[in-house]
Amino acid sequence: MAKRAGKTVAESAAEMVEMVLPNDANPLGNLLGGRVMHLMDIAGAISALRHAGSQVVTVAVDNLDFLYPIRVGEMVVLRACITRAFRTSMEAEVRVYREDYLTGARQQTSSAFLTYVAVDSQGKPQGIPPLIPRSAEEKRRYREALHRRRQRLALSARAHQRYFDKS
Amino acid sequence: MAKRAGKTVAESAAEMVEMVLPNDANPLGNLLGGRVMHLMDIAGAISALRHAGSQVVTVAVDNLDFLYPIRVGEMVVLRACITRAFRTSMEAEVRVYREDYLTGARQQTSSAFLTYVAVDSQGKPQGIPPLIPRSAEEKRRYREALHRRRQRLALSARAHQRYFDKS
Amino acid sequence: MAKRAGKTVAESAAEMVEMVLPNDANPLGNLLGGRVMHLMDIAGAISALRHAGSQVVTVAVDNLDFLYPIRVGEMVVLRACITRAFRTSMEAEVRVYREDYLTGARQQTSSAFLTYVAVDSQGKPQGIPPLIPRSAEEKRRYREALHRRRQRLALSARAHQRYFDKS
Amino acid sequence: MAKRAGKTVAESAAEMVEMVLPNDANPLGNLLGGRVMHLMDIAGAISALRHAGSQVVTVAVDNLDFLYPIRVGEMVVLRACITRAFRTSMEAEVRVYREDYLTGARQQTSSAFLTYVAVDSQGKPQGIPPLIPRSAEEKRRYREALHRRRQRLALSARAHQRYFDKS
Amino acid sequence: MAKRAGKTVAESAAEMVEMVLPNDANPLGNLLGGRVMHLMDIAGAISALRHAGSQVVTVAVDNLDFLYPIRVGEMVVLRACITRAFRTSMEAEVRVYREDYLTGARQQTSSAFLTYVAVDSQGKPQGIPPLIPRSAEEKRRYREALHRRRQRLALSARAHQRYFDKS
Amino acid sequence: MAKRAGKTVAESAAEMVEMVLPNDANPLGNLLGGRVMHLMDIAGAISALRHAGSQVVTVAVDNLDFLYPIRVGEMVVLRACITRAFRTSMEAEVRVYREDYLTGARQQTSSAFLTYVAVDSQGKPQGIPPLIPRSAEEKRRYREALHRRRQRLALSARAHQRYFDKS
Repeated sequence: MAKRAGKTVAESAAEMVEMVLPNDANPLGNLLGGRVMHLMDIAGAISALRHAGSQVVTVAVDNLDFLYPIRVGEMVVLRACITRAFRTSMEAEVRVYREDYLTGARQQTSSAFLTYVAVDSQGKPQGIPPLIPRSAEEKRRYREALHRRRQRLALSARAHQRYFDKS
Repeated sequence: MAKRAGKTVAESAAEMVEMVLPNDANPLGNLLGGRVMHLMDIAGAISALRHAGSQVVTVAVDNLDFLYPIRVGEMVVLRACITRAFRTSMEAEVRVYREDYLTGARQQTSSAFLTYVAVDSQGKPQGIPPLIPRSAEEKRRYREALHRRRQRLALSARAHQRYFDKS
Repeated sequence: MAKRAGKTVAESAAEMVEMVLPNDANPLGNLLGGRVMHLMDIAGAISALRHAGSQVVTVAVDNLDFLYPIRVGEMVVLRACITRAFRTSMEAEVRVYREDYLTGARQQTSSAFLTYVAVDSQGKPQGIPPLIPRSAEEKRRYREALHRRRQRLALSARAHQRYFDKS
Repeated sequence: MAKRAGKTVAESAAEMVEMVLPNDANPLGNLLGGRVMHLMDIAGAISALRHAGSQVVTVAVDNLDFLYPIRVGEMVVLRACITRAFRTSMEAEVRVYREDYLTGARQQTSSAFLTYVAVDSQGKPQGIPPLIPRSAEEKRRYREALHRRRQRLALSARAHQRYFDKS
Repeated sequence: MAKRAGKTVAESAAEMVEMVLPNDANPLGNLLGGRVMHLMDIAGAISALRHAGSQVVTVAVDNLDFLYPIRVGEMVVLRACITRAFRTSMEAEVRVYREDYLTGARQQTSSAFLTYVAVDSQGKPQGIPPLIPRSAEEKRRYREALHRRRQRLALSARAHQRYFDKS
Repeated sequence: MAKRAGKTVAESAAEMVEMVLPNDANPLGNLLGGRVMHLMDIAGAISALRHAGSQVVTVAVDNLDFLYPIRVGEMVVLRACITRAFRTSMEAEVRVYREDYLTGARQQTSSAFLTYVAVDSQGKPQGIPPLIPRSAEEKRRYREALHRRRQRLALSARAHQRYFDKS
């Protein structure tokens, strides 16, 4: 079946650009962390939609860091790509950049790994095509994604254990 | 001076992608015309910021049409590029597409020409680099931009005339 | 049938007033062009709803200009009226004013012509009442609307031609 | 001084109209009470701005009732007028209507009395012009406003008493 | 039936805390009155949802005052509790505080009484459990709620009378 | 100095509750992952503000998972507490619950660890009080926070290494 034959990283890569408005800033004039997280979720979800060819839901976020503030009046650029597809879930890497319109220079300010599950119109998980990594960089991310997935499941199992034990 | 030496169309081209949420829809489930216009203004302004290397303000919008509805759950993709730079103003063409995540197909739903003026931090107009069209397509848009500008100024003069006469 | 007997311009005229909040401003403290466009679309749509007596969708925007900035803390007033009704579509003129609360003076900052199509609950176009222009001003706008419609259709045909040729 | 010579009710009356979008509705498809309250505050503030000729802040809301739901896809119309001006404060009556675009009929759904204080750019209260009621209706509202103000101050004094007594 | 056996005040009490962002402020940098009203409606509705165990709609707001401004960068804390339950309606008292993060001190800035009606999925009113006041404070509020309800109904009857007479 | 003498976990714990509106949902009717992330950032920031007694900025998010969907019409409850304070940074644990208003039952849907840095009005990091864990649970979280911090710094160092190497 054609859909299950696999898709390349480039087929689902996404780029978004936004202007930072006063609307999105804290009292110091910086883009709110929570707003960046919201944009990262949308950028990652667009890549996941394109890869899965179905609706998707966010199930996990890891290793999200904020290295530099983004200021009102700057542009924020987000780049998302799928790092690996599993049976019904896939991991996206999202990178955030601020862009200086005086010079055109971009500086990376954040990155994170977000995991999405493909769902049908009733919200049930459904199978997705495998990802075909091509470049050395894509292959490295593909290998590392498996490692992160194992960590995630271990943490998640521990966390669930704890919920059942207490409260 | 380096900044005035001219920039290519590619240097300031911009692409945005958004998911259409219930938030942005009318009661029929279609992306609101006014919301599309807002996104087109942002996409065009990002191209203008990149070309001008300064803040910009919107001064005119022409020939904006909505050919097909975009529905909640679809993706909307916007592409903007500068068609021609004048002394302090520049025209951007913005095209809007809806993207079907089942097939990846894109269909153009809108286009428009938006004019921006570059301003300094006090809001005064300031000079911008010339645009260097390269491809045949870029050259055609460059020529047509001058024609649209003349129409705009003629209309604007007539409109101003009318305001002074009445009201 | 009473509904098709025609409506006057006054029957569907609309006036909106809003306060400009920091929420709606660019980093220079001016109301965003895209936000003005959104408000103009709503004002025009309200006139169109009132004239058509059905849901409407935006299909075109022409000759939109921004003559003066509107600042945070000012009031923005929008006035919309139908200029002419065709079979299923109608054109609205929307004018935007900033109002100075110290003096009560109003200054026009923008105007545009927006075209709406009346639709039923499935989104299919449906017939609308004719517009009955009364004053000399209403009759002038009625005549000019036909001229603008022809330009729009000519441009639109050319634009469509181009999409089929390339892209 | 001209500004202190008094203004009529008509000079500061305001009318707003909005479309109810899914954005503003509860899960039953009705315009949220809190959203209506927000719109009423803006409509009243616009009348207060026009009467005072200065910035204003909201200090009280009384007798706000919601008689009928307003549904997604309907239009909401707000009408505000000043009922009486005191030294630095003034009371506005705001009425809310839903408008049926099929028939053009309006039905009142809410009303309330909102009190605003005029402030200078440092937020200090400042004097405002007296209100000149003309019609019998305006005179009735003018008399009743004084009664409501007394009730408000009595309640407010009791409320303050209670805060000082306990926590 | 267990649900009708009555609930204590504590069972439905709610506390919300929000940061005041530039988004929510007027040009003086203060939280907008209308935004506070919106938050108060949500806080009261959450208490009403918890007491009723069904969807609720807002039907009235009384005695809402704004004693002190809340500034951008401060925290706003809202506390809501049910004061009395009637057959299908209930009254909530909502208090608003600003919190100073330097000292942790809270100052009350607003309070109001909001009335909600419990509704089923078709929007029809439905019965709710009685409220069981326990502390002396809860009993005082319980008694006063009946007094406010009578005032509300009297005012409402007068108001309705007036709509039928004129308008 | 009193401020540096340490604060307990309870002194900065925060609870927020929100209603899930259509506004915040994806086309399946579930609260958007990005919106949950935004709320978690605000809840954690409020705890951090209370602990630090100064403005804070988000610097990292870890181990964020979404176990169950939250649906339009439900309530979402967020609980945040500081797990450990370092010199200028502190870690908050944020837990998200959905609350069923029919039964009052709460089910945990998400949790995450967010790291904030205390900053002065110029955005420079500044010292914060130590956290005083009291209960066995608070002490366990305190120990684990150090472990997570080391992982975070190791990952961050690796990530930085990579940016300098390529891109």
